[in-house]
Amino acid sequence: MKPEYTLPAGADFHVHLRDGAMSEAVVPTIRPGGIDTVYVMPNLTPPVTTVAQALAYRDRLRAIDDSINYLMTLFLDESITPEVVREAKAAGIAGIKSYPKGTTTNSAGGVLSFESHAETLRAMEECDLVLNIHGEVPTGTRPDISVMNAESRFLPTLLDLHRQFPRLRIVLEHVTTADAVEAVRACGDTVRGTITAHHLSLVIDQAVGDVFCYCKPVAKSPEDRAALLNALVTSGGKFFLGTDSAPHDISAKKGKGSAAAGVFTQPFACQYILTALEEGIERGDIRDEQVTEEVLSGFLGEWGRDFYRVEQSTKKIVLRKTDEVIPESLKAAGVEVVYYRAGKKTWSLEWL
Amino acid sequence: MKPEYTLPAGADFHVHLRDGAMSEAVVPTIRPGGIDTVYVMPNLTPPVTTVAQALAYRDRLRAIDDSINYLMTLFLDESITPEVVREAKAAGIAGIKSYPKGTTTNSAGGVLSFESHAETLRAMEECDLVLNIHGEVPTGTRPDISVMNAESRFLPTLLDLHRQFPRLRIVLEHVTTADAVEAVRACGDTVRGTITAHHLSLVIDQAVGDVFCYCKPVAKSPEDRAALLNALVTSGGKFFLGTDSAPHDISAKKGKGSAAAGVFTQPFACQYILTALEEGIERGDIRDEQVTEEVLSGFLGEWGRDFYRVEQSTKKIVLRKTDEVIPESLKAAGVEVVYYRAGKKTWSLEWL
Repeated sequence: MKPEYTLPAGADFHVHLRDGAMSEAVVPTIRPGGIDTVYVMPNLTPPVTTVAQALAYRDRLRAIDDSINYLMTLFLDESITPEVVREAKAAGIAGIKSYPKGTTTNSAGGVLSFESHAETLRAMEECDLVLNIHGEVPTGTRPDISVMNAESRFLPTLLDLHRQFPRLRIVLEHVTTADAVEAVRACGDTVRGTITAHHLSLVIDQAVGDVFCYCKPVAKSPEDRAALLNALVTSGGKFFLGTDSAPHDISAKKGKGSAAAGVFTQPFACQYILTALEEGIERGDIRDEQVTEEVLSGFLGEWGRDFYRVEQSTKKIVLRKTDEVIPESLKAAGVEVVYYRAGKKTWSLEWL
Repeated sequence: MKPEYTLPAGADFHVHLRDGAMSEAVVPTIRPGGIDTVYVMPNLTPPVTTVAQALAYRDRLRAIDDSINYLMTLFLDESITPEVVREAKAAGIAGIKSYPKGTTTNSAGGVLSFESHAETLRAMEECDLVLNIHGEVPTGTRPDISVMNAESRFLPTLLDLHRQFPRLRIVLEHVTTADAVEAVRACGDTVRGTITAHHLSLVIDQAVGDVFCYCKPVAKSPEDRAALLNALVTSGGKFFLGTDSAPHDISAKKGKGSAAAGVFTQPFACQYILTALEEGIERGDIRDEQVTEEVLSGFLGEWGRDFYRVEQSTKKIVLRKTDEVIPESLKAAGVEVVYYRAGKKTWSLEWL
């Protein structure tokens, strides 16, 4: 890898910007991570299930930073009828996100089975609205499911959906396993996968014991991590960046009870990717010559923009290898959010 | 299961009693857990590597509660020569514990390979001193090892050791996988396994996100948990109780940085086992009629005492099903240790 890269601005196709104080803290960190376009998750409380809610949410985000292109989504539940789908398409909503019931933050109203949503999916296919999938079998629904196999066991459902709706554009979000990489590759061109920064660098060993490395889906084995790094460098557009940056106040991580799931990566989105690639080369998971500028530009923004039919960015970012370290936490708007890889080295990032 | 059991006093063949303030807090909780005999781990700082240290440690424990039978161990490192083994046997030391280097609390001086300890193991076999094994391949030594497969990948080493030293009594501590149960069963009568209370009830899903369920080895899959419950009820003496109760102050769990590994189960040792069996029956992992008084008496004490050649206890405990809940934490001697399953129902325990 080179010590410096000048690349098109990044696009992050899976972000949690929250609302209220947390969004005031987090939205201003999008640009420092090298990102000008974000695909905004709808799992607020209550979830974003109407076009009006989505547009009002976008207004609130724009009021914080109007230099970002916010691509909005709806939360798939029973209220998302074919009419809502057509209304969403007309209003410029980019996609609809499906969460398995109870699997992650604010997903209690999520999907137990896609069968009851068949009409909605048909309408999405007709309107060409993207379906985003959190691809895990909800734990607790089957006795053989644990966090380690919940994604792999979901993949037959992905393949079924794709067979049933071959023109429906589907993104399997935050893939964490070699199995998921293989399943996405086995599907046609309408199916893609996003990969987070943290799953490119973590394994389950860090996710247990360090609550700031704990998220859903959990990080898996070293072999799975190597498969993700390989998916990135051989992606050809099949896989692109979606950080799933998921801020939680430190009190929800270190306070009483279980820790909230989520890793906070927004402020160093592009930087983390370069570090993960460097470490992957060091471990021998990927080869240095595979990390080309084409791969970096593609994964960090171009491939996702292509898939979502968003104009390519004319803005540029410069990433430089430095000895700077990531500070402990973001303290703003009355919240404190601990950074992923706090205290470790990062790249610097500058907008041209 | 019955609502009440009168059983011989339990024996816990794997406990961490620590030293100083922590031992003052924890040692008085041995009896409330229904236990009168404990097998004391040597991973203090510095580790217990001499007979004199072990006897002095036992004196400190007796000064806190002299009604408990403390079985003492040494920490296997280069200083444990055949001479030390013979001296240990003569002094009534019960066994020698081997930790893989760097795998858990205070194990930095541990074993990387048993080959360099062959003379010591030969002397242990001759003296009939028990070898206790933390059976995980140290993560970081091989790129394919993660916390999820570290135990399974260690098992060939166990089988090799048993082949090389067939008369050496070996205990594979805190087995967590179906693989480990199978490996112990595949060995001759000199090899046994201990099972903790928490691995009979946890799976990896709770170990990530809840630091009070985080320990080494980590809890594994639902199938692995079912295998442990089955090992218990079909043990016939092959598996017996070793709680691996591992107290850490709340500051080491919820404070800055990664959480210390360890689940604190001492004060409810026998009670947790009954709850784990009840839940295992509810899930269908085991059948109600398998949980006989013979199995309970055996697992909770008799089988371990037999193996370690400790006299059977004449004391009795009574366990009763109640609606009492486990309190939040033990606060004593200036430390605070959060209980496993705080806030959940437990059985009551009384000494006759």
